[in-house]
Amino acid sequence: MKALVKTDAGAGLELVDVPVPSIHPGEILVKVFAGGICGTDLHIYEWNPWARSRIRPPLILGHEFCGTVVESGAPASQVSVGDFISGEGHIACGQCHSCRNGAFHICERLQVIGVDRDGAFAEYVAMPAGNAWKLDATIPREVAAIMDPLGNAVHAALEDSLAAKAVAVIGCGPIGLMAIPVCHMAGAAMVVATDVSDHRLALARRMGADLVLDAKTEDVPARIREATAGQGVDVVLEMSGHPKGLRDGLGALRKGGWVSLLGLPSGEVAVDIADQVIFKEARLVGIFGRRMWRTWEQATALLNKGLDVTPIITHRLPLDRFEEAFALLKTGSAGKVILYV
Amino acid sequence: MKALVKTDAGAGLELVDVPVPSIHPGEILVKVFAGGICGTDLHIYEWNPWARSRIRPPLILGHEFCGTVVESGAPASQVSVGDFISGEGHIACGQCHSCRNGAFHICERLQVIGVDRDGAFAEYVAMPAGNAWKLDATIPREVAAIMDPLGNAVHAALEDSLAAKAVAVIGCGPIGLMAIPVCHMAGAAMVVATDVSDHRLALARRMGADLVLDAKTEDVPARIREATAGQGVDVVLEMSGHPKGLRDGLGALRKGGWVSLLGLPSGEVAVDIADQVIFKEARLVGIFGRRMWRTWEQATALLNKGLDVTPIITHRLPLDRFEEAFALLKTGSAGKVILYV
Amino acid sequence: MKALVKTDAGAGLELVDVPVPSIHPGEILVKVFAGGICGTDLHIYEWNPWARSRIRPPLILGHEFCGTVVESGAPASQVSVGDFISGEGHIACGQCHSCRNGAFHICERLQVIGVDRDGAFAEYVAMPAGNAWKLDATIPREVAAIMDPLGNAVHAALEDSLAAKAVAVIGCGPIGLMAIPVCHMAGAAMVVATDVSDHRLALARRMGADLVLDAKTEDVPARIREATAGQGVDVVLEMSGHPKGLRDGLGALRKGGWVSLLGLPSGEVAVDIADQVIFKEARLVGIFGRRMWRTWEQATALLNKGLDVTPIITHRLPLDRFEEAFALLKTGSAGKVILYV
Amino acid sequence: MKALVKTDAGAGLELVDVPVPSIHPGEILVKVFAGGICGTDLHIYEWNPWARSRIRPPLILGHEFCGTVVESGAPASQVSVGDFISGEGHIACGQCHSCRNGAFHICERLQVIGVDRDGAFAEYVAMPAGNAWKLDATIPREVAAIMDPLGNAVHAALEDSLAAKAVAVIGCGPIGLMAIPVCHMAGAAMVVATDVSDHRLALARRMGADLVLDAKTEDVPARIREATAGQGVDVVLEMSGHPKGLRDGLGALRKGGWVSLLGLPSGEVAVDIADQVIFKEARLVGIFGRRMWRTWEQATALLNKGLDVTPIITHRLPLDRFEEAFALLKTGSAGKVILYV
Repeated sequence: MKALVKTDAGAGLELVDVPVPSIHPGEILVKVFAGGICGTDLHIYEWNPWARSRIRPPLILGHEFCGTVVESGAPASQVSVGDFISGEGHIACGQCHSCRNGAFHICERLQVIGVDRDGAFAEYVAMPAGNAWKLDATIPREVAAIMDPLGNAVHAALEDSLAAKAVAVIGCGPIGLMAIPVCHMAGAAMVVATDVSDHRLALARRMGADLVLDAKTEDVPARIREATAGQGVDVVLEMSGHPKGLRDGLGALRKGGWVSLLGLPSGEVAVDIADQVIFKEARLVGIFGRRMWRTWEQATALLNKGLDVTPIITHRLPLDRFEEAFALLKTGSAGKVILYV
Repeated sequence: MKALVKTDAGAGLELVDVPVPSIHPGEILVKVFAGGICGTDLHIYEWNPWARSRIRPPLILGHEFCGTVVESGAPASQVSVGDFISGEGHIACGQCHSCRNGAFHICERLQVIGVDRDGAFAEYVAMPAGNAWKLDATIPREVAAIMDPLGNAVHAALEDSLAAKAVAVIGCGPIGLMAIPVCHMAGAAMVVATDVSDHRLALARRMGADLVLDAKTEDVPARIREATAGQGVDVVLEMSGHPKGLRDGLGALRKGGWVSLLGLPSGEVAVDIADQVIFKEARLVGIFGRRMWRTWEQATALLNKGLDVTPIITHRLPLDRFEEAFALLKTGSAGKVILYV
Repeated sequence: MKALVKTDAGAGLELVDVPVPSIHPGEILVKVFAGGICGTDLHIYEWNPWARSRIRPPLILGHEFCGTVVESGAPASQVSVGDFISGEGHIACGQCHSCRNGAFHICERLQVIGVDRDGAFAEYVAMPAGNAWKLDATIPREVAAIMDPLGNAVHAALEDSLAAKAVAVIGCGPIGLMAIPVCHMAGAAMVVATDVSDHRLALARRMGADLVLDAKTEDVPARIREATAGQGVDVVLEMSGHPKGLRDGLGALRKGGWVSLLGLPSGEVAVDIADQVIFKEARLVGIFGRRMWRTWEQATALLNKGLDVTPIITHRLPLDRFEEAFALLKTGSAGKVILYV
Repeated sequence: MKALVKTDAGAGLELVDVPVPSIHPGEILVKVFAGGICGTDLHIYEWNPWARSRIRPPLILGHEFCGTVVESGAPASQVSVGDFISGEGHIACGQCHSCRNGAFHICERLQVIGVDRDGAFAEYVAMPAGNAWKLDATIPREVAAIMDPLGNAVHAALEDSLAAKAVAVIGCGPIGLMAIPVCHMAGAAMVVATDVSDHRLALARRMGADLVLDAKTEDVPARIREATAGQGVDVVLEMSGHPKGLRDGLGALRKGGWVSLLGLPSGEVAVDIADQVIFKEARLVGIFGRRMWRTWEQATALLNKGLDVTPIITHRLPLDRFEEAFALLKTGSAGKVILYV
């Protein structure tokens, strides 16, 4: 089968022919329909320090995907041949303290599809049956391909009640963009979005942001206070991973507010703990992956209620045009890029 | 001034001339614009056992209302002459354990306007400045008159997150009806509404219920399970106060779900604690009044976001047609009845 | 092997010889050390209506137990031959909505050892490896036999913070008795215990209750208000399952308090929803089984910190004196009765 | 009367004679019994940058104190002449968003006794009656003088449930030291304490820490993992305000854990958001002042249950030996220093 593979330690990827994987008991074989490219994939492509320390080539990339089950080693009660599924990329061990307390998403021995084992940028992927989320025909197939990052957005946004709250989404990559309508559907009174790209700010407006701010040129905390009768926002979703993003978000947060931290900074970030956290009694919560399976139930329910995330899909390409796809991602002007297999 | 007064122990009310009240320090005098009639007012009119034990005539009725401040004994930072306000009817002492912990709405020495002191079915009402909620021009004035019951609905619905949850609203009086769009705005995946009146079920549909069930003729738990893939609802808002309403709600609740109990039963209610609460690990929460002032902030934010509760106002009458207004309420076919002063 | 078996539909049990069970993949075989007799076992013995509807003879009883793993069909990372374990009697399916959200204890297809499949009042029991809780030598073996009901007590008591709270434990069977020191170790300011048996009230005092009340002769709510400066308790643990117990508990609860409902009433219970739940904004939570595995971690940590529940074990008998053991239970004057295998 | 006054902008304090303050309506006059010196008082003494920006001399210092009400402008239901009280130093406005939601401790217009208005290092202090916490004779008077910092410890420790949790207290100043027994009384399974002073570590041991670690010489995260079966602690109370303290705490925190941030860093702190917060899904909560009045109720209940914080009071001096008292504080080898008036 065709597969997009990191063949050697070093930059770049290759589209090569590999055998169709075989499955173990409890696993399923999925005929991949499409997958989304994630920042993580770009890090592996570029072979950045994190990738060097984590990835053991050869490896097939791809952890955001959907497809059809074509072979199953699991009980039919769980999943059946013919089911259309979206993949949860995080495989939990089921035995550690986190798993034994139902917090599978912070499993202490977490394995990631497309990172620690072969992924889904290929015609077929083998995966644990327990990581498949069955979908009915009401969910568009290209949306099914990006339920993993949609889940990140849902997890970050629904960490606590948003009803009647003012929210700032800091950073409008695909996850930030998807978080905007999620906040509105969860009752947010106002959603402010910030980014440094005109293109992304235009998408933010299209996704329903009530106010968009260019973080390059605007004083974000000041503008947000202006828009909230001097109060600041109740909630910040930090999706940028930039030190300035976190600073803007904390600066815009009102006393007693909370922050979901999702964007991954590349190093340590200087935080004004006294003024921005302690004096405000702010609550900062790390957000990682998706709660299994609450987040998936929530995302599915919101999609069924009318959540439309298709505007963030700016490019759709076949797998063999992967170089073009990764190049688009690097420009920063793309939303989500989908690879069709 | 004209006032609607319970003049003596016994059924009925009289429209009489009384002096304009004078205010004490910390109080304001409000020129009343309009008020809503509540079930409590009907109990006082009819002089039911509760009314007999609580009410000390003569008393001016009315605790849902709005109007304009015409005199103030409070600092201008708090409220000023000319402000248009809606009244919070529950006066907290500020000194008890509940108040000292910020739970003013369950004050241990709670006093109620129109129940324990003269109310607002009159040209003027004197009240503590701290019970006034200032409104800007964006809120329609007749909605301002019923922010008290809207607050009950908001308090019950936003007790916990509704995002992506299936909700049953049991009982479609004005509070139940207003809860329907509040649930949708807070992200509910589905809202089922039940009642025994065709008229109210039609209003429930108009307020956005996805499914309406006639509790007289339908097997409510069975129909709800049918509509939820056999699971039942995640959340029940018990707004009926009827034993059968509670039974229907608990019977329709899925394992791990929660219930807001707002409807006041007239006596004890038989509950199947083992099957419906313990085996389900259900959580039942009593809902009383409105959280001061979180509920008011939430209600205002939802109204500003587009919440429209005007369809539930079915009748608008001048104060001197009060007999007609109370008669309408008794029929059970009215939504909310507003008295204009 | 010897086993205590419900051989036929009808009252009574028999000690009979049966084959040692064989295990399936994922299961373990446990050489039973000892087991506790539970009210459920008594219901099965007496063949009450619930037992008639649920039990399919022949069935070996026993779901509170400990023992040593002698054969394993599970990975060594999970459990090994030679491990000393206490058994979680509730087997979760892992696939339903509750399980997929980490709420294994309210699994929609729950199976119970000793109820739905053969139990542990026998020399050996076969069970899923995932239901074994490994113990080190610090936990006394007879305590290991009753970690299931201790877990019920921990689950009920630690449902929310008890720090600096006044608590009433209503009903001093073994679970209520064990809850008393758990509350104190979790920071309760005061623990009041009620029962109708002098023997149990004496045990309650021994377990550390600050005040014990005889519910037959005392006005429980009045006495509790007296002991709490007129306020009532912040928390009620309803362990009796008696209508009067619930009434006493709710009557003693302060505004804004919460109640864990654990005792199973035999039928519907009349509740004064208006006065005792709504006007108080009380929160009532059903408590079922033990959270897997948070409750077990908590119970183990408390035992390691010095929790001593041995005073509640009033009788220790060999398996073949089971008739005597069940007779003791019926008198109501026993604490926990342990059967040694 | 005698009073300890910052007379001019610049370092130092003077003991001078000033008039006894007069009270306004709603205020009380308190004959001061004793007060505790806080780090904030030292900052004002030393005239550090924060003090320069905030303090307007002349000002009487002192915000941790107790004494007897000698004159009252408040209703007797609230406080009476002759009552012995401990002072809450933070004065809330009652009108802002925080106050109107019951979060008085993060009032947006907070005023602090001894910082923004004359304090209690004097024979008499005038203060709002609403800031007095009445004490009965069961609380030792010198403990009454430091209920403000004890409240900080209680607020930080009881932010969430500690039952059966492993806790690290980072920094053993008076607040950290008092937090140790509070954690144990709230059910903590283990309390580890860290500091850089041998003297303070010895006090930590005396206050009940199960393990004390010298942060100068030990690898704190490694030692804590060692002591927790490789898992790390569930909870960190950051009481040091040092960048290394926060780093140690986060490094020792297990996945899914939470952190109370109380120690005030003097500038920005570099935080490894990705590894220590996001990948762990840690929750960081700012802790400021004391919840009014929940924290006070909790502290009083714990003292009544046997909490003994007197070992941390290392020095007791009369007001006129204030120079010696401040010198002791500067050495870092004192616990709490009390000034008797």
